[in-house]
Amino acid sequence: MNIVSSLRDLLGDNAVLDAADLATRSAGFLRPDNLQAAALARPANTEQVAQVLRWCRNNGVGVVAQGGLTGLVHGADADPAQVILSLERMRDIESIDPRQRCATVQAGVTLQALQEAVEEHGLMFPLDLGARGTATVGGNAATNAGGNRVIRYGMMRDMVLGLEAVLADGTVISSLNQLIKNNAGYDLKQLFIGSEGTLGVITRLVLRLRECPTTRNMALVGLESFDNMTALLKHMDRELGGTLSAFEAMWNGFYRLVTTEPARGRPPISQDYPYYVLMESQGADPEGDSQRFNDALASALEAGLLADAAVSQSEGDCQRFWALRDDVEQTFLGGVPCVFDISLPMAEMETYIDELRDALPGAVGEHKLWVFGHLGDGNLHIVVQLPPERADALRPTVEQRVYAPLSAFKGSVSAEHGIGLEKKAWLHVSRSAQEIQLMRTLKAALDPTGTLNPGKMF
Amino acid sequence: MNIVSSLRDLLGDNAVLDAADLATRSAGFLRPDNLQAAALARPANTEQVAQVLRWCRNNGVGVVAQGGLTGLVHGADADPAQVILSLERMRDIESIDPRQRCATVQAGVTLQALQEAVEEHGLMFPLDLGARGTATVGGNAATNAGGNRVIRYGMMRDMVLGLEAVLADGTVISSLNQLIKNNAGYDLKQLFIGSEGTLGVITRLVLRLRECPTTRNMALVGLESFDNMTALLKHMDRELGGTLSAFEAMWNGFYRLVTTEPARGRPPISQDYPYYVLMESQGADPEGDSQRFNDALASALEAGLLADAAVSQSEGDCQRFWALRDDVEQTFLGGVPCVFDISLPMAEMETYIDELRDALPGAVGEHKLWVFGHLGDGNLHIVVQLPPERADALRPTVEQRVYAPLSAFKGSVSAEHGIGLEKKAWLHVSRSAQEIQLMRTLKAALDPTGTLNPGKMF
Repeated sequence: MNIVSSLRDLLGDNAVLDAADLATRSAGFLRPDNLQAAALARPANTEQVAQVLRWCRNNGVGVVAQGGLTGLVHGADADPAQVILSLERMRDIESIDPRQRCATVQAGVTLQALQEAVEEHGLMFPLDLGARGTATVGGNAATNAGGNRVIRYGMMRDMVLGLEAVLADGTVISSLNQLIKNNAGYDLKQLFIGSEGTLGVITRLVLRLRECPTTRNMALVGLESFDNMTALLKHMDRELGGTLSAFEAMWNGFYRLVTTEPARGRPPISQDYPYYVLMESQGADPEGDSQRFNDALASALEAGLLADAAVSQSEGDCQRFWALRDDVEQTFLGGVPCVFDISLPMAEMETYIDELRDALPGAVGEHKLWVFGHLGDGNLHIVVQLPPERADALRPTVEQRVYAPLSAFKGSVSAEHGIGLEKKAWLHVSRSAQEIQLMRTLKAALDPTGTLNPGKMF
Repeated sequence: MNIVSSLRDLLGDNAVLDAADLATRSAGFLRPDNLQAAALARPANTEQVAQVLRWCRNNGVGVVAQGGLTGLVHGADADPAQVILSLERMRDIESIDPRQRCATVQAGVTLQALQEAVEEHGLMFPLDLGARGTATVGGNAATNAGGNRVIRYGMMRDMVLGLEAVLADGTVISSLNQLIKNNAGYDLKQLFIGSEGTLGVITRLVLRLRECPTTRNMALVGLESFDNMTALLKHMDRELGGTLSAFEAMWNGFYRLVTTEPARGRPPISQDYPYYVLMESQGADPEGDSQRFNDALASALEAGLLADAAVSQSEGDCQRFWALRDDVEQTFLGGVPCVFDISLPMAEMETYIDELRDALPGAVGEHKLWVFGHLGDGNLHIVVQLPPERADALRPTVEQRVYAPLSAFKGSVSAEHGIGLEKKAWLHVSRSAQEIQLMRTLKAALDPTGTLNPGKMF
């Protein structure tokens, strides 16, 4: 059986790369290695995706679907015997409907390309994340991507009206629904969203669009206590009447890091507060929105919820504030970063982080710890930086210290990054044996031959 | 096998009603008949639900879970050989967490009881519908209820953070997640939401709450054309910066009906416009919100989008406006109503309704037709009223005329009511053979013995 030539017979010569071609392609964002697989197939349309899947299933070959390779949990890794199915040639924006406020696209479209295309119609696709230029909307859907504005607009799951997916046996499930309300039978698209390519390959999507906001107001504030941070979230959310679009927390160490050389950012307010929050509100009323945002800040100050605030005066200020929060790369300098993406109830966060901070020195010795994240969603990102020479040896200990306590707090080992291979061993912390068994039941029902993204997740 | 005595052995005598007891209980809202079943079991907790399911499955008895019996599609009908599993004794509100902004409840809690309980904490559970006093949150989840504010807050699916469900074999799947972001494996709760009790019985839920809005502004407006209606939706949504919470359309006939004797309502504006819209915005800034709402109306008037408007000056006005829209019972007087709940893309609505209006006289003779609904969601309610003596004979013809054209428009035979028994024969209009086959695959995987809500949906 020659995989490459068989797939070339199906798709054409140029549509299939062999193992040697692949060895020159990066395995993805932050990855030192290159791709490996028996072949990489680049179908041009849904029917070709179905052909590849049918052939692989009939020949006992595993298939790993790949989008922009910006995932962080080894969810799209292939092994040398498997076939990579890349959606890179399926990047048509098929239609944008300003009245129905939806876009129909192929799965290989990048998030940024979609964002820019809909903006020309005065519309917004509200999902947003740092990898927007490379990440594809198909990958966003397969991993149920989150990002910065989940508090207002939800995750990718909430933005998918319909989709088309191909099952392992080549069956095309075309559920290209454009309607906000459709209770005609099971909502099948939910199976494919967030299942990391293990139940089907998403080929096309209908995405919900919003009217584009025309104003934004931001503030970067310092707070004296964690309780003030959660109280401020409630306060701002209430006072802004539903227009709060981001509420990003930074613990002191992270704020210092991104506002100090060698980082390019400088501190808009003192570096001495234990907690900082970046808040954003989006609206459509230039004068009224600023007034309301400033009033809400003033009443928060009066109530003692915040200690200091820098308020954006321009779009440039907004971009500078976001640049601080987004300068995660600072945590990668000078050591090996272990990056975590967890969620837990807000009532437990302070205790959880304090206990982690206390435990790490004894457990791993010299290290650095930074904490930041999407507080409004219960989602924290934690970076533990280890000395290069001890990183590989200590990583399992760090994982143990980060993940194991989440069980007692009903937290999640993955808020938005997914499970992939990286967190597979820790899934049991967040899911019961019965839940994992039900996942296996679904996998067996939809992909009995185990063709799709073998070995991932559970 | 004596079903009643066997279940009484499991749950206690008072927890199980027999067929004679049942014959005095109404089959539900708008139903002339009474319940029928071999027994009605009223478990007190999740473990008892599991016991009932295990016994029924082992003895080949079908189980129909029931909430408040306010459904409209015969989705919870049982036959004389089956067991009804009523959640009526499981109505605890277990906790309300104002910081995490979620409530943990048993499935039998009524929607209104939950709404009122969370209001005491300054919070809102945004799902709202006419049956709120009787409908249960478990039923709301099992049917993915919609209602009046979907345009802003989504459907029930979007408000469920976590749930606990019991599978047909008695396995308890406890996914009582409180987190907005949790990508640890498949999102299993999606299986049980909107599947009408065919895949599992929902026993407990964690529901997302919002800060309670403190202002609302409303207007009832008249429009000269359908295109103005969809343009007005975009205009208001854009100008109100995301605070538009309802956009309810009424065709002329419905508006006349609910503003004319014997209805109690009176017309706030002329009865001569072809279309009317009820708009609502919710916020937290008394002065600013009114100003912004009135500005948006003024610019709509200037742009020629609306012909006349009555603007609420008080909470009493708001309630009177909503009472018009909610006075659906007027369509039940003087004939037999056939009530439909469909959705289709906005671009097709005018054509679809015009063609239906043209076709009905030839198809069914004398009748009345009213149209209204949640325009922002693409969801129309259509009532065709038939003379009592010909209603049974003509209903299939009316269904044919309403449902069949939806296929070409990619519409749905059920926007929010579900499929149940009533629309089972029409599911194929909105779902492909492949989609229905995949639904069957799921059903076979989760409930291989066909124990749960047998014969419903497909």
